[in-house]
Amino acid sequence: MTDAELLRAAHEYENALRDNDLAALDTWFADGLATVRAEGGTALVGHGEISDYRARRGGAPVRHLRRVHVREPAPGHAVTVSETERVDGGSGLQTQVWERRGEGWRIIAAHVSGAPAAPVPTVAPGPDRATWRERGPDGGALVRGSGHGELAGVRVAVKDLVDLTGHRVGAGVPAHLERAVPATRTAPALRALLDAGADVTGIAQTDEFAFSLMGTNAHYGTPANVAAPGRTTGGSTSGPAAAVAVGAADLGIGTDTAGSLRVPGSFCGLYAWRPTHGAVDVEGVLPLAPSFDTVGLLAAEPAVLLRAGRILLGVPGTVERPRALLRSATLSGLAEPATAVAVDAALTALAVQTGLPLLDVVDLPGGEFGTEEVQAWTAAFRTVQAAEAWAAHGRFVEENPGAVSPAVEARFRTGAGTDPVDVDLARETLRRSASRLAALLAHGWLTLPSTAGPAPLLDASPAQWEAARASTLPLTSLASGAGVPVLGLPWGRVGELPVGLSVLAPAGADAGLLDLLTRVAPEGRRHRATEERPGQSAT
Amino acid sequence: MTDAELLRAAHEYENALRDNDLAALDTWFADGLATVRAEGGTALVGHGEISDYRARRGGAPVRHLRRVHVREPAPGHAVTVSETERVDGGSGLQTQVWERRGEGWRIIAAHVSGAPAAPVPTVAPGPDRATWRERGPDGGALVRGSGHGELAGVRVAVKDLVDLTGHRVGAGVPAHLERAVPATRTAPALRALLDAGADVTGIAQTDEFAFSLMGTNAHYGTPANVAAPGRTTGGSTSGPAAAVAVGAADLGIGTDTAGSLRVPGSFCGLYAWRPTHGAVDVEGVLPLAPSFDTVGLLAAEPAVLLRAGRILLGVPGTVERPRALLRSATLSGLAEPATAVAVDAALTALAVQTGLPLLDVVDLPGGEFGTEEVQAWTAAFRTVQAAEAWAAHGRFVEENPGAVSPAVEARFRTGAGTDPVDVDLARETLRRSASRLAALLAHGWLTLPSTAGPAPLLDASPAQWEAARASTLPLTSLASGAGVPVLGLPWGRVGELPVGLSVLAPAGADAGLLDLLTRVAPEGRRHRATEERPGQSAT
Repeated sequence: MTDAELLRAAHEYENALRDNDLAALDTWFADGLATVRAEGGTALVGHGEISDYRARRGGAPVRHLRRVHVREPAPGHAVTVSETERVDGGSGLQTQVWERRGEGWRIIAAHVSGAPAAPVPTVAPGPDRATWRERGPDGGALVRGSGHGELAGVRVAVKDLVDLTGHRVGAGVPAHLERAVPATRTAPALRALLDAGADVTGIAQTDEFAFSLMGTNAHYGTPANVAAPGRTTGGSTSGPAAAVAVGAADLGIGTDTAGSLRVPGSFCGLYAWRPTHGAVDVEGVLPLAPSFDTVGLLAAEPAVLLRAGRILLGVPGTVERPRALLRSATLSGLAEPATAVAVDAALTALAVQTGLPLLDVVDLPGGEFGTEEVQAWTAAFRTVQAAEAWAAHGRFVEENPGAVSPAVEARFRTGAGTDPVDVDLARETLRRSASRLAALLAHGWLTLPSTAGPAPLLDASPAQWEAARASTLPLTSLASGAGVPVLGLPWGRVGELPVGLSVLAPAGADAGLLDLLTRVAPEGRRHRATEERPGQSAT
Repeated sequence: MTDAELLRAAHEYENALRDNDLAALDTWFADGLATVRAEGGTALVGHGEISDYRARRGGAPVRHLRRVHVREPAPGHAVTVSETERVDGGSGLQTQVWERRGEGWRIIAAHVSGAPAAPVPTVAPGPDRATWRERGPDGGALVRGSGHGELAGVRVAVKDLVDLTGHRVGAGVPAHLERAVPATRTAPALRALLDAGADVTGIAQTDEFAFSLMGTNAHYGTPANVAAPGRTTGGSTSGPAAAVAVGAADLGIGTDTAGSLRVPGSFCGLYAWRPTHGAVDVEGVLPLAPSFDTVGLLAAEPAVLLRAGRILLGVPGTVERPRALLRSATLSGLAEPATAVAVDAALTALAVQTGLPLLDVVDLPGGEFGTEEVQAWTAAFRTVQAAEAWAAHGRFVEENPGAVSPAVEARFRTGAGTDPVDVDLARETLRRSASRLAALLAHGWLTLPSTAGPAPLLDASPAQWEAARASTLPLTSLASGAGVPVLGLPWGRVGELPVGLSVLAPAGADAGLLDLLTRVAPEGRRHRATEERPGQSAT
């Protein structure tokens, strides 16, 4: 719905600003004495004054758009309020009032302000066992990697589903841990990270058997979410998300079956990548529903996610680029209204930052998603996931009464007696939705809210947890069911609470999807919070 | 032309902000999730979030509007960029995007930022004799006042036209000073200030016989203008203006015949008051053109101007309030385009701050001023002023060849041979324009640029000086010819250069005119610049 030329103009304006292209900047500001540019405490009035100012200042600090709020009160008139992230960690705001003239969109008024980087809060660590199942001494490495390579110095939190030689897999369930034997081989995906120089800083918690999206764990407690205090991290990659958000790790390696990387990424304000199904080896990783299981990553710094993602992909093939970004009113409408608005601002920032056109699905062949279609793929996904989860862990659940919490047990048991015919029908439904999605993705990469809302409060009732999970599954299960890769960008804000924007690319386009990060993110983005690290502060 | 309801809405919004009236503030921001309020580095999205924020913050710092830039790109849509002055000396910016809905104007997007008070620059004093003809020892008092009363502690710079017991009057002309004898009585206007507690800190320079508007003086040099470095202070009250602008005095007492307070007020960013002709006693003050001569004031702090002005008026009668503010396209058009735009922003700030309606003269009975009308009153004023100036000082000029500079001498000589019939005709023209103005002022107080532009550069050519004077006289001579009072508000900015907004009230409405200051100015506004004051820093 947003005027395409307006987004294009905003993109070209950002390019001109980055390049300090004075002639172009002069062009984007409307001619005449009425044009106003306000910054800090004073306003410049008139095109000439503004131009003179720019010629004197010698360029603006590099900034990256994170949210662009576009309002178009009348045809040919628009206001954009852009929130930016600066390389120095500070944040910036830019309001522009645009008018469409004969020669195109022009800025008639602008207001710029900024804030320095917020002081990095030192966060009191929560109960350590809620985040970590096993940790290196004094916050140092539990297992050292090669120490050299692309990931040298990167501290990895490993979800407690992934084999690490000499360590057991706990899967968030104490009874499972008791019965586990130490792994004799590190999972290949994790091995690749260690070979590239990363260290394992600890084995971090997960929802029981990864079969939840909310990050609660009745046995170990719920990890603290420093990005949304008093709220859950989401899950099931809860421990790695908590560890990365607090700065105790740089990278989380975990699984995503139904959203288990995308959801904590959304709730904790982290970059998340779910690869194309099968693109990253899941050997040595405890399964949940093999048709959907993937091994992927979480990071606070986009550059870390990019480097680690490229390691997991191995030698990249072609780096695919999207023709456009797609937006679906139906999918946006699955989120809470404030979340939909917040994610839309993040999407607009992505469009302006990359210069990619923003198209509405309704205008493409095939048209908008229907509500029945969404319900169908969600139900089908649930059916197949539950059947496969029961196949993977049903016996353990049967043999160990009370080993998993009642809600998770109930979830497993929905898959116990599934008629194989129903499972086949569900797989057929998922194939259809995958075909439909693949056809759509030929027009551009599809964007949608990563979650239906921000992180729920820790004291939510069981019914509220279930509702939060149920409202998010329709959003996450589209990519899970189709096996396509997803990049989660942590740019949305509902108040101070993060919510993610998911970008879905065609199957196999992981390298291109990760490459988006090079176009939107500053190098050297700092952590938002720092946990005390006794082992490091002693040096 | 600006939508009256919009200005009213902006006024009521400011009132609500001042009173921290949360319900009213909630009303002014548009309902719904799309409303954005950005401040510092982040944006709040949605009416609810914005409302919650306001409820938490407990009020905003008191601010006063100085310039409001209104742009109305389409009917029912407007943007206001407001520059504000805070009581703590800091400055603020507020951009608001307005939409007219069924219920009235509402804010759909806002952006707020601020800057702390600029560090007070310590200005190297220029050649002392360019500003001061006589000064107290070590920057202290030259003559002490009563020391108690409304003006206790106020340091007054006295224009070198005003009698001070024991001191001579120099009138900017060394040959005049040589012939002068010490006054035996202090002029009543100055006496009133001293009685109210003020001290005379020095006798400050003037243009030769006050017969210029530019502040140049061939004998003593041109005082430095710290508000517009490298430019003139304007005149003829040049020394007091320079002294007040630099913080070496709190108050300037001077004369205004053709704009000699309003012009330096405009060029130096000072509040200026020219009283109703005859309202303040001119006894003991060297005349220039008695039909127009007034004694008035300059100050950096509006509160100082207000207190001192009330002293000069004596016991006030009724405090008249304007029904509206009037704007004339003809008079605005006499200023340079950038100055007209700047003064319009100051006028809009005045309208929003006071809540007074802003009416265009063209819409009132009598209609817009015509160009011939302006030319007529300017020419008539020049004729009468020159004739009276010659009557006052022609003999001195004749008897002291070379005592005044050629440009000033030429100006005097234009009055030498004036036919009394022409003078009478000119007086008749001025009476007509005074009647016309009086009729207009019944509808509201007339506003116009105080000068045609900001201060000229010090290295301007004689022709440029003459042009600057000639372009400003049509603006200043309207009030001079009609004898009505003028308040100069130093709020316009052309780049960093100040330009003043003049407000003309009906004859005798001085108390009401000064009372405007109570509605628009913070108490305790600090000086912009500080001259070294050895006498004070020693304590």
